[in-house]
Amino acid sequence: MPTEIPADSVGLIQPQSAFFEDALPLRCGRSLSNYTLVYETYGSLNQDASNAILICHALSGHHHAAGYNSVEDRKPGWWDACIGPGKAIDTNRYFVVSLNNLGGCHGSTGPMSQDPETGRPYGPDFPIIAVRDWVKSQARLADRLGIDCWHAVIGGSLGGMQALRWSIDYPDRLKGCAVIASAPKLSAQNIAFNEVARQAIVSDPDFHQGRYFDHDTRPKRGLMLARMLGHITYLSDSSMREKFGRDLRTGKLNFNFDADFEVESYLRYQGENFSDQFDANTYLLMTKALDYFDPAGDHDGDLARCLSQAHCRFLVTSFSTDWRFAPERSEELVRALTRARRQVSYLEIEAPQGHDAFLFPIPEYVALIEGFLGSLANGGTV
Amino acid sequence: MPTEIPADSVGLIQPQSAFFEDALPLRCGRSLSNYTLVYETYGSLNQDASNAILICHALSGHHHAAGYNSVEDRKPGWWDACIGPGKAIDTNRYFVVSLNNLGGCHGSTGPMSQDPETGRPYGPDFPIIAVRDWVKSQARLADRLGIDCWHAVIGGSLGGMQALRWSIDYPDRLKGCAVIASAPKLSAQNIAFNEVARQAIVSDPDFHQGRYFDHDTRPKRGLMLARMLGHITYLSDSSMREKFGRDLRTGKLNFNFDADFEVESYLRYQGENFSDQFDANTYLLMTKALDYFDPAGDHDGDLARCLSQAHCRFLVTSFSTDWRFAPERSEELVRALTRARRQVSYLEIEAPQGHDAFLFPIPEYVALIEGFLGSLANGGTV
Repeated sequence: MPTEIPADSVGLIQPQSAFFEDALPLRCGRSLSNYTLVYETYGSLNQDASNAILICHALSGHHHAAGYNSVEDRKPGWWDACIGPGKAIDTNRYFVVSLNNLGGCHGSTGPMSQDPETGRPYGPDFPIIAVRDWVKSQARLADRLGIDCWHAVIGGSLGGMQALRWSIDYPDRLKGCAVIASAPKLSAQNIAFNEVARQAIVSDPDFHQGRYFDHDTRPKRGLMLARMLGHITYLSDSSMREKFGRDLRTGKLNFNFDADFEVESYLRYQGENFSDQFDANTYLLMTKALDYFDPAGDHDGDLARCLSQAHCRFLVTSFSTDWRFAPERSEELVRALTRARRQVSYLEIEAPQGHDAFLFPIPEYVALIEGFLGSLANGGTV
Repeated sequence: MPTEIPADSVGLIQPQSAFFEDALPLRCGRSLSNYTLVYETYGSLNQDASNAILICHALSGHHHAAGYNSVEDRKPGWWDACIGPGKAIDTNRYFVVSLNNLGGCHGSTGPMSQDPETGRPYGPDFPIIAVRDWVKSQARLADRLGIDCWHAVIGGSLGGMQALRWSIDYPDRLKGCAVIASAPKLSAQNIAFNEVARQAIVSDPDFHQGRYFDHDTRPKRGLMLARMLGHITYLSDSSMREKFGRDLRTGKLNFNFDADFEVESYLRYQGENFSDQFDANTYLLMTKALDYFDPAGDHDGDLARCLSQAHCRFLVTSFSTDWRFAPERSEELVRALTRARRQVSYLEIEAPQGHDAFLFPIPEYVALIEGFLGSLANGGTV
């Protein structure tokens, strides 16, 4: 934590946890007999519980979206730039809930948790979780917190898919839905990148069919490769050019296989760092949730028909240099929402950061979220 | 080989080999004390040796560009679509030379060859080869074949970089230079993808610091991952969509980590196939040659100044959906050639295949190559 907490920070935050003893039936046909969700909240729930906002995290995210968990923390939560007093998601006005999703590796029930049926970690036996399963578990958390209807559900990337699924599966339980840097389904290329990441993990000899903890090891190399690859897709070609260009680490070519270029050592560092912190089985699960997401699939591929179930207002946002989920993918969603006669605001934000842009406090983007949330307070449901 | 050789095939071809006993000094400061180049030729060299065309191969290519090596061959050479009697590179008119580059794994001296100093395979001790080194070795092959001046040097991707290097280093030894689907240097993103591929290989426990043959093994998993990743960058998003979409292999989701989607099994197949055939040390070398290529680097980054050394005529070609070496990268080259007052024809070909398009007989593209080669015969050097 910085020596002084910034005035616009939510401050020191303690994660909470909720245990659910009712079984959760899952899309895959299996069910979790019970589960725990770890979450954080920022701000205060008002009297009529009408000011709650749910933040859904992306592939490698977690519940810690804002503030500091301890005085030792050097960095705040992953979306601290947008959540706090006076920020776009203003904790003076809103009660913000951010959880770690099922299957995660940050405290909620996932592959590292004990399987009540066997008494040992689930590991690879953890069921494949679909986006709709997360949303169902989030709805139960809302019940627990006394929130009938979210002011808004907000998410970027895989988080945006959860927000979209909320609008379809629980149309009366949210006023606004913000789908940021996301897509109504993955493209073949998106799936292909995920598949290479998965193969990197499962082909690591330390993976042991997902039972690496039994062997007192972890598939660090595979996870590192997966993250390096993922990282390339989060940045834009232009941001990489700006950040690294062809700059050499030592000012000259090495003529060996050490890292010659800055971009190489950056990626190695990112990959190694991530592989120390993240669980490989969780990474596999998250990529499958991405691949499987296709809400129109239940409606003969007709996204507009699918979305006509929704009642809420939508904000769809994309970023000009995002090639993982390019603006065209957001436009598909906007066209379907329009055909379904839903209220939708759409803006493509000019930003150099690629997919990662959704994490940055880009003024136009921040103002858009803030304005959308404010308009919901004024207008109510449509 | 098909039961009947097509009329426009160069037919049954025997690779030849040339041994060079003079040491080849290399860009990295080391040298090869002697070396062998394996090559094929198609068509006949004319009396004044003025009809020779050099084909330079890309990352995973080799000397076998056209025809069939044996009656068992099911597939012809990698650029058979463009090389043959009556084809764009017409073997009735031209004498076509195609070699396996140094460092390769198809017969020319490379990591799998015996190091004369140690008597065992070079393996990881094979020197890092730069594009200029290849060109130098190719010039010696030209000497050997009695070719003072190529009618044209042609290459796609990494092959285009060799063609470009020819125009700079041996300006009087080629009339035409065709740089196809290439770039004057890699971007940070290009390097990043190469680095992930390299890390996949070197982090494979079967890599053994490149001495896998000593351990009677090969880093197949790493090479498979490298190829899967590479393959994604060779195809366009749209061609993947067209080819695979979100088609499911078994018509339904498996809810496990088997390949659900067609694109996954396609990539796995491509990766496994490649890892059976290709040498990992060669793959590493080829990616470094790509990363290091930057002819303007010797001229304070001024590509136009660098290219003003060239005398030949240029054809630069890009493909609309190529995102590995996007049309903008070709345009950089064209702008520099124009500033250097070189004669250059440029066309961006509309093609859905992505980077791989350069291997396809797209009519407009084929006509362009044919026309360029014909115009050189008429116009001579500039």
